[in-house]
Amino acid sequence: MPSYTAPIRDMAFILENVLDVVHSDVPGYDELETDFISAIFSESAKLCEQILTPLNTTGDTQGCQLVNGVVRTPEGFKDAFEVVKAGGWPGLDCDPEYGGQGMPFVLASAVTEMFSSSNMAFSMYQGLTHGAYSAIYAHGTEQQKQTYLPKMVSCEWTGTMNLTEPHCGTDLGLMRTKARRETDGSYSISGQKIFISAGEHDLAENIIHLVLAKIEGAPEGIKGVSLFIVPKFLVNENGSLGQRNALSAGKLEEKMGIHGNATCVMNYDGATGFLVGEAHKGMRAMFTMMNEARLGVGVQGYAQAEVAYQNALSYAQDRLQGRSVIGVENPDGPADPLIVHPDIRRNLMDQKSFVEGARAFTLWGAHLIDRHHRLNDKAADGLVSLLTPVIKGFLTDKGFDMCVQAQQVYGGHGYIEEWGMSQFARDARIAMIYEGANGVQALDLVGRKLAQDGGKHAMSFFELVRNFISENVEVYDNFYKDFLDPLEQASKDLKAGAMYFMNNGMKNPNHALAGSYDFMHMFGHVCLGLMWAQMAKASFDALEKCIDDVAFYETKITTGRYYMQRQLPATAVHLKRIESGADPVMALGVTNF
Amino acid sequence: MPSYTAPIRDMAFILENVLDVVHSDVPGYDELETDFISAIFSESAKLCEQILTPLNTTGDTQGCQLVNGVVRTPEGFKDAFEVVKAGGWPGLDCDPEYGGQGMPFVLASAVTEMFSSSNMAFSMYQGLTHGAYSAIYAHGTEQQKQTYLPKMVSCEWTGTMNLTEPHCGTDLGLMRTKARRETDGSYSISGQKIFISAGEHDLAENIIHLVLAKIEGAPEGIKGVSLFIVPKFLVNENGSLGQRNALSAGKLEEKMGIHGNATCVMNYDGATGFLVGEAHKGMRAMFTMMNEARLGVGVQGYAQAEVAYQNALSYAQDRLQGRSVIGVENPDGPADPLIVHPDIRRNLMDQKSFVEGARAFTLWGAHLIDRHHRLNDKAADGLVSLLTPVIKGFLTDKGFDMCVQAQQVYGGHGYIEEWGMSQFARDARIAMIYEGANGVQALDLVGRKLAQDGGKHAMSFFELVRNFISENVEVYDNFYKDFLDPLEQASKDLKAGAMYFMNNGMKNPNHALAGSYDFMHMFGHVCLGLMWAQMAKASFDALEKCIDDVAFYETKITTGRYYMQRQLPATAVHLKRIESGADPVMALGVTNF
Repeated sequence: MPSYTAPIRDMAFILENVLDVVHSDVPGYDELETDFISAIFSESAKLCEQILTPLNTTGDTQGCQLVNGVVRTPEGFKDAFEVVKAGGWPGLDCDPEYGGQGMPFVLASAVTEMFSSSNMAFSMYQGLTHGAYSAIYAHGTEQQKQTYLPKMVSCEWTGTMNLTEPHCGTDLGLMRTKARRETDGSYSISGQKIFISAGEHDLAENIIHLVLAKIEGAPEGIKGVSLFIVPKFLVNENGSLGQRNALSAGKLEEKMGIHGNATCVMNYDGATGFLVGEAHKGMRAMFTMMNEARLGVGVQGYAQAEVAYQNALSYAQDRLQGRSVIGVENPDGPADPLIVHPDIRRNLMDQKSFVEGARAFTLWGAHLIDRHHRLNDKAADGLVSLLTPVIKGFLTDKGFDMCVQAQQVYGGHGYIEEWGMSQFARDARIAMIYEGANGVQALDLVGRKLAQDGGKHAMSFFELVRNFISENVEVYDNFYKDFLDPLEQASKDLKAGAMYFMNNGMKNPNHALAGSYDFMHMFGHVCLGLMWAQMAKASFDALEKCIDDVAFYETKITTGRYYMQRQLPATAVHLKRIESGADPVMALGVTNF
Repeated sequence: MPSYTAPIRDMAFILENVLDVVHSDVPGYDELETDFISAIFSESAKLCEQILTPLNTTGDTQGCQLVNGVVRTPEGFKDAFEVVKAGGWPGLDCDPEYGGQGMPFVLASAVTEMFSSSNMAFSMYQGLTHGAYSAIYAHGTEQQKQTYLPKMVSCEWTGTMNLTEPHCGTDLGLMRTKARRETDGSYSISGQKIFISAGEHDLAENIIHLVLAKIEGAPEGIKGVSLFIVPKFLVNENGSLGQRNALSAGKLEEKMGIHGNATCVMNYDGATGFLVGEAHKGMRAMFTMMNEARLGVGVQGYAQAEVAYQNALSYAQDRLQGRSVIGVENPDGPADPLIVHPDIRRNLMDQKSFVEGARAFTLWGAHLIDRHHRLNDKAADGLVSLLTPVIKGFLTDKGFDMCVQAQQVYGGHGYIEEWGMSQFARDARIAMIYEGANGVQALDLVGRKLAQDGGKHAMSFFELVRNFISENVEVYDNFYKDFLDPLEQASKDLKAGAMYFMNNGMKNPNHALAGSYDFMHMFGHVCLGLMWAQMAKASFDALEKCIDDVAFYETKITTGRYYMQRQLPATAVHLKRIESGADPVMALGVTNF
C-alpha cells in the first residue's frame, strides 16, 4: 500500500523564503510565523498521513453504494470525517463570523494539497462544501448566510454544485432545469443534474445543493440562468431540520477513479429552492468563486503527482534491478537500485521538478487571491484571473502525466491495483476534466483573459518576469546563465505566441483558438520557470546566510537547473505549433475525417 | 457503448499504394492482390466488429474469476474464441506444415490491429499463443514441433510466456526458478512466476507454458537461463492429453485494465518441463521472436488509439455544445457540434495523424520482418531490429496519450465507465509496460541497436530518408516545402542526437542514457514523418491517375501536412534535452531526492 509524507519543509520554504509572508502587507499574514505555520502543518500532516492515507485504498476498492436512495460511503470515511470536523479543518480560511478560523487562503491551499494527496475522493466532500460556502458567502442574503454558513463551515452540513445536465456541460445556456416562483417567494425546482460530486452520502445530516436553473420566462441562453439553494432537508426557522425536500439521487456513476466520492445523478421534482443573488445572474454568482475553485483543482492535479512521486522514489531506491553502467553501486546486493539508471533518474527528476514548481505556482496564485480579498488589490485579482486557467489546465495535465510516469517506475507492478500507483493516475485524470475541461481553460485563457482590460494583466505578468530578471542579473555566479537566460528565452516565446494571436486572431479567431492549448502549456512552463528562478534565488540567499539545511537549498537549486534545462525548452515547440496557425488544424472538412 | 469499424480502406492503401506489396520480391506477396486482401480484411472486420467489440465491455466489467484453481473468463469469451478458431485466424501467418495459412506477417499484422482495437484483452489469448508458437517453431526439436504446434496454431491449446518473478522483471539474471534434470531427460521445474497473461483459463483444453528457469549448476546470471515447455496437461505419445502437471495459478492480479485477460501468478511445484533449444541459451531463444512480439505490442498501442479516436470523432460530430466563433454552423440546432471548435479539431487531428502514421510505420516494420524471414534479407533484419524499440516504445506512449486525448473530447462522460473511453486508456496503459517497459526500449535503442554492426543499420535508415528526399524534391508542387523540408529538419535533429551520443557516450555512457528516452521519441517522430511523406507521395501519385476516391487521397495529404507542421517540430526540444547531457539528470545525489 502506498505511503505519504506531507512535504511540510517545502511548503514552509515557499511561504517563508519565496513569498516571504510575514513581511507582507496582507492583513492576517503577520500571523504566519514559522512556529505557527509549522504547528498547523504538522497537525494537518498527522491527520492526512495517519488517517486519510490508509483510507485512500479503501475508498477506491469499496466505492460508494446507493441503496434505496441512500448512499453509503466507504468504510472508515464517516469516522474520519468526524475527526476532520473536530479539528476545524473545513473552516480553516472561512469567515470567523460563521465559525471559520479566518486563516489566509495561501495557508489553506497548502493544507488542501495534503488532504488531496492523501485522499482525493474523501477531500472532495469538504472541498465542494467550501465552494458552496463561498457562493453563498458572496451572494447570499444575511439570513441565508446565518441559516446555512455556520453548519457548512463546520461541515455538519455539506454542499454541492449542480451545473451539468445530460445534454449540456460547458454550454450551460442549453440548460433545461426549471424554477417556478411560488407565492411565498421560494421557487419550485424541477430537472435533472448529472456528475454531482458528493450529491448524496452519509457523512452529514444535511446537504445544501446549489443548483443552476432557469426561472420561467427568463431570457434565452446563459443570461437566463439563476442560482438556488436547494437543501436536502428544509431548515426550520429555529435552525433545526424540517421536511425532506423533493430531490433524490437517482444513480451513482461508475467512474475511472475517485471511487470514494459519490458522483450522483440528482433529480429535482418540484424541490423547494431559494434564489441566491439576483434572478438571471446565476452564472455571475458561480464565476465569483471560479478562481478559487479552479486553483483547488490545480492543487488536486499536482497533489496526486506528489504522492505518486514519493512512492515511485522509494520504489526506485529499494528495488534492485540491473547494474549501473558506470560501475556497480551496490556491490553487496544482487543488483543496484533502480535509481542508479539514468532514465529512471530522468523520470524522477521530471516529477520532482514539476511538483515543486507547481506547488510554488499555486501558492503564489493563492497569495494573489488573498491580496484581492484582503487588500482589495485589483491588480492581483486581474493577474490571478489570467493565471487561473493556466494553474488549472497545465497543472492537471502535467500532474496526470507525472502520475503515469511514476507508475512506469514500478514496471508491471505499476499496473496492479494492489500497489496503488494506478489509483493515483485514475484519480488525477478527473482533474483535467471537471471544473471546466482543460480545452475550455485554454479557450478562457486565449479568448478572454489574455486581452482582458486591454491586455493589462498579461502585460503586468511579462513586466514581473522582466523585472525579476533585470534585478537579479548579477546577484550570483551563473545565476543568469542557469536560470535567467532560459527564463528570458521562454518568456520571449510566450510573448511571440501572444503577438501571433494579436496579429492574426482579429482576421480569424481560429488562428488564436487553434493554438490555445499550446499557449496554455507554454504559459505554464514560463510560470514554472519563473517559480524555479525565484526558488533558486531564495535558496542562494538562504545559503549566503550560512544557516542550517544546506542540503535542502542545494537540492532546490539542482532541481531548478533540471527544470530550466530539460523542461523549459518545450516552449519552442509550442510556439512553432501556434505559429502554424489555424490552417493545418482546420483544413480537413468536418465530413472528411 | 463504443463502436468500432475496421479501417480497411486505410490498411489496403498502405499495403497497395505505400508498400506496393504485389510488386514486391518477397515470396508470398504476389498473393496479396486487391481482391484477396479485401476478402481477408472484410471477414476479419466482420468478426471484430460484430463479435469481439461488444464483448470488450463485458470483459472489462466482469473480468476473470479464479475459483478452486480454475479461471473463468468473461461471459461470451468462450463462444467467441470458438468462432475465431473456426475461422483459422490464430494461424494466419503460421507455417502450413503445422496447419497455418502461411500468409505474410504484414497481412497478419493488419488483422492483429483489428483484433486489438476491438478487444485487446481477448486477443491476447491468441497473441500469447502465437508468441509461444514462434519460440517452439524457431528452437524446438522436430518432435516438439509435431507435438505442440498443430494444436497451438489452431488454438485448441494456448500458450504463455513465463519470464517475470516477484523480485525480477527486466533483470532476469536474478531469476530463482529452478530446473532439475530427471533421468528420462525431462526437467523438474520449481518456482514462482508472476504477471503471466492467459496463465490459466477455460478457453482451451491445454495450456503450453514456456518457462525460463535455471538448471541446477548453471552459470550465474542471465547466462544460466534456459527455456522449457511446461504443459498444463502432459501430452501422451499418441497426442492425447495425459496427466495434469504440477503447476497452478495461485492468484489473479487485479489490474488497471485488460480485465478480460487472466493475469496469473503461476506456481511450478516440480512440474515436468522439456528443454527448448540448448541449455543456458534460453534468453537467446526468447530474443529470437522479440521483434515480432514487440511489434505486436506497438500495434496494441495504436490500435487502442484507433478505436478511441473513432468514438471521439463520432461524439464530436454528434454532441451539440457551443457555437463556432466564426459563425453558426448548425443554425437549426440549439448549438453547433463539438467538432467546429478549433481545439477539438486539434485534438482529433493529433489522434488521426498519429494513428495513420503509426499504422504505416508498423506495417513497414512487419514488411521488413517478412523480408528477413522470407528472403533472408539481413539488411531488413538489421533495420527492423533498430526500429523495433521505436515501434514498441513510441507507439505505445503516444497511443496511450491519444486514448487520453480521445477521452477528453467526451468531457465528464469520458470519465464514466459506461461510455467506454476510460477502458481504452486503461487497456492501452499496459502496452507501455510489458514486453520490456518503454525505458528499457529506449536503453535497447541507444545502448545496443544504434551502434549495432558498427552503426550500419542506423546509417542505412538515414540513407533511406535521404534518398527518399532527394528522389522526390521536384515531383509535386509544394511537396518539398510541405513534406520533405520538415522531414529533413527532423532527420537532422535525429542525427545530431546520435552524434551527441557518439561524441559524449564514450567518455560517460550516462550522457547517452540520460537522453535515451528523448531519442526514442525523436526517432519515432522522424519515422512517422517519413511515413507521412511516403503516404502523401503515394496519394499524389494516385490523384495523378485521376481514379476514384479523390476525397480519401486529399484527406491523406491534409492529415499528413498536419503531422509535419504540428507534430514533427517536437524533435527540436528532444534534441535540446539530449544535448543537455547527463549532468542535469544525474546531478542530484541518490540520497538528496
